[in-house]
Amino acid sequence: MTQTFGALNPTQRVLLGPGPSDVSARILRALAAPTLGHLDPEYLTIMDETRQMLRQVFQTKNEMTIAISGTGSAGMEACVCNLIEPGDEMIVCVNGVFGGRMKDVAQRYGAIVHTIEAEWGRGIDPQQVAEAFKQHPRTKVFGIVHAETSTGEQQPLEEISQLVHDSGALLLVDAVTSLGGIDIPIDGLQIDACYSGTQKCLGCPPGLAPVTFSPRALEALDQRKSKVTSWYLDVTMLRNYWGSDRVYHHTAPINMTYALREALQIVLEEGLAARIARHQRNHRMLRAGLEAMGLAYVPQHSLTTLNAVHVPEGVDDLAVRNRLLQDYNIEIGAGLGPFKGTAWRVGLMGSSSTEQNVMLFLAALDNILRDGGLGIEAGAGLAAANAAANESEVATA
Amino acid sequence: MTQTFGALNPTQRVLLGPGPSDVSARILRALAAPTLGHLDPEYLTIMDETRQMLRQVFQTKNEMTIAISGTGSAGMEACVCNLIEPGDEMIVCVNGVFGGRMKDVAQRYGAIVHTIEAEWGRGIDPQQVAEAFKQHPRTKVFGIVHAETSTGEQQPLEEISQLVHDSGALLLVDAVTSLGGIDIPIDGLQIDACYSGTQKCLGCPPGLAPVTFSPRALEALDQRKSKVTSWYLDVTMLRNYWGSDRVYHHTAPINMTYALREALQIVLEEGLAARIARHQRNHRMLRAGLEAMGLAYVPQHSLTTLNAVHVPEGVDDLAVRNRLLQDYNIEIGAGLGPFKGTAWRVGLMGSSSTEQNVMLFLAALDNILRDGGLGIEAGAGLAAANAAANESEVATA
Repeated sequence: MTQTFGALNPTQRVLLGPGPSDVSARILRALAAPTLGHLDPEYLTIMDETRQMLRQVFQTKNEMTIAISGTGSAGMEACVCNLIEPGDEMIVCVNGVFGGRMKDVAQRYGAIVHTIEAEWGRGIDPQQVAEAFKQHPRTKVFGIVHAETSTGEQQPLEEISQLVHDSGALLLVDAVTSLGGIDIPIDGLQIDACYSGTQKCLGCPPGLAPVTFSPRALEALDQRKSKVTSWYLDVTMLRNYWGSDRVYHHTAPINMTYALREALQIVLEEGLAARIARHQRNHRMLRAGLEAMGLAYVPQHSLTTLNAVHVPEGVDDLAVRNRLLQDYNIEIGAGLGPFKGTAWRVGLMGSSSTEQNVMLFLAALDNILRDGGLGIEAGAGLAAANAAANESEVATA
Repeated sequence: MTQTFGALNPTQRVLLGPGPSDVSARILRALAAPTLGHLDPEYLTIMDETRQMLRQVFQTKNEMTIAISGTGSAGMEACVCNLIEPGDEMIVCVNGVFGGRMKDVAQRYGAIVHTIEAEWGRGIDPQQVAEAFKQHPRTKVFGIVHAETSTGEQQPLEEISQLVHDSGALLLVDAVTSLGGIDIPIDGLQIDACYSGTQKCLGCPPGLAPVTFSPRALEALDQRKSKVTSWYLDVTMLRNYWGSDRVYHHTAPINMTYALREALQIVLEEGLAARIARHQRNHRMLRAGLEAMGLAYVPQHSLTTLNAVHVPEGVDDLAVRNRLLQDYNIEIGAGLGPFKGTAWRVGLMGSSSTEQNVMLFLAALDNILRDGGLGIEAGAGLAAANAAANESEVATA
């Protein structure tokens, strides 16, 4: 028996979770442009333009800057599986879900993985890195998460990059929750391989993973003794598909490329520096508001794009998130791993990072928490946020 | 220096290549619906509905029927890498690009691959299969392409399926260019794993790969001694993400799922049998027209969804395709591998499979080839196509 369903009619949410973030009408319009063939000269131009803009957003001259035809995790896997051959040594920093995932991926592809660990919500100390390299001097790849989406912790990379390069290893960085929202200059930080996702600070639907590989990373790729295990993610072939040869590999997700191209246009029209400043400003507002309401941040150095806060004592995590969604159409994220049920993750990424969203979210949370009888002073969060906004303006002026 | 580009404005083509096929306005509209979070209850319902409709289109009861978050080739890789562990034996049938690709993928994941070969454009003989199993009785997986996109050859599967199951192996089938356009009943043919793409007979943009795994295939998966090498394509985890547990794995390409859901609705509203008959009817028309113009088919048993024909002697392959694109906005495909420069691949898939497109393409090709002074009688192709259409109607009535 044939069974079909009603018309598709998703509710317009305010996406303040860990991603996807809100997708602007302009990007949705680009997404729905007529589908071209993936070898159509017009589409090849669109691919070229996308690459050129991706390089600007990654702040790199890397020729090998493309979008992998999968979501952010495919980008992680693409970076790892191309740089790692079975038996290679890799150091992976683990202080949250995504460092743990990188370790898992690397082991699956046959790497001998040495981990550097830190408490979730704490950063990796350069001292730990120096010691790890002393113990494992033959390390080929060093992997670290710049913006740990599970804890909201931002990882400084300057010193660590120096240590990695002094040891001769390749620096692999997860920038899924930072690219386009937090400064992550690939060339400036001498990052050799970096991946991100489209659905965070770029404000696109999920479906593509921007990646970039330095000339040093490509040399390592050229020196591989074995084929890359993953055919789909094999950069030695993807290079020829995205390159001037246009050697057929797979059929790229045409319409998603349209959306990414539009998203990158928007980033560059706003200006990367202005966009980063906008994310900082709205984060400061939100932080002032949340702290005035008595909520404590999980991470030591919070991302400006994602705010992980402890669920206040006595508050029912799920009930609050359900009310935000049902009564206000606001999505925020739950805690992951050890923070399951005890943390919220509030994203202010891409188009979602607006003063209006900060005000709306604080007002909604204020309503809900006061209903819970927590003794929060009505409007305390909003007042603090406004004060912070005014300070920002003074600081900017 | 910031460099941006003009507004995105792709030309509306008539997509008669090997995919993508034309995407209807209805599907593009679904694609551009507001992005939901991937754990939003509304999105979970959309995933469930998509799975239920996918099962109907695959003609299967298989619980594990989902869309992989990548294009068709990711579907191939997902099927291979989940069923194969290093050292497993696999038989792969190679009579075109995609059989060759399956062999490559299987070897990368450590399979000992035995190939059965046939000339490109010819089918695999059940006799060859019987002999291969005699020689390699420990074969775990048998892989074959149902619709070889590089040659247009359709592979009958009934007898072969019997042989595969008699030997105790798992039957893996590539249905990228057949699902939704040619009858491929998964349960009826006892297929254990099958993958397809969205951009062919389903009429969706590229970006997702529908896959289905039989209970036997899942048993094999449960008995693996090692983790699946690919984290992104690991069905043991994807099962929990698409299942009732909703264990977070990766962020699904939300808007692409909208488009797939809409495409499946359209398939089921038309009715699978009626849709398959439409593809047959339009293929017969096109074939009558092309043959009346003196063009010969490449494959022994042509797909109804893709027509591979030899480029006539003395005709410049590229010049004709360029004129089709520039003067008529029609895309057709070039030859691949040994057919590079000597064959055209004309797709009539999904929304592209219409009588109007057949007439338009024949008229355009007629114009172009007559300009080449080939002595083709004006309108011969169209007349033959019309006659075939009338015959079809008589036969249907």
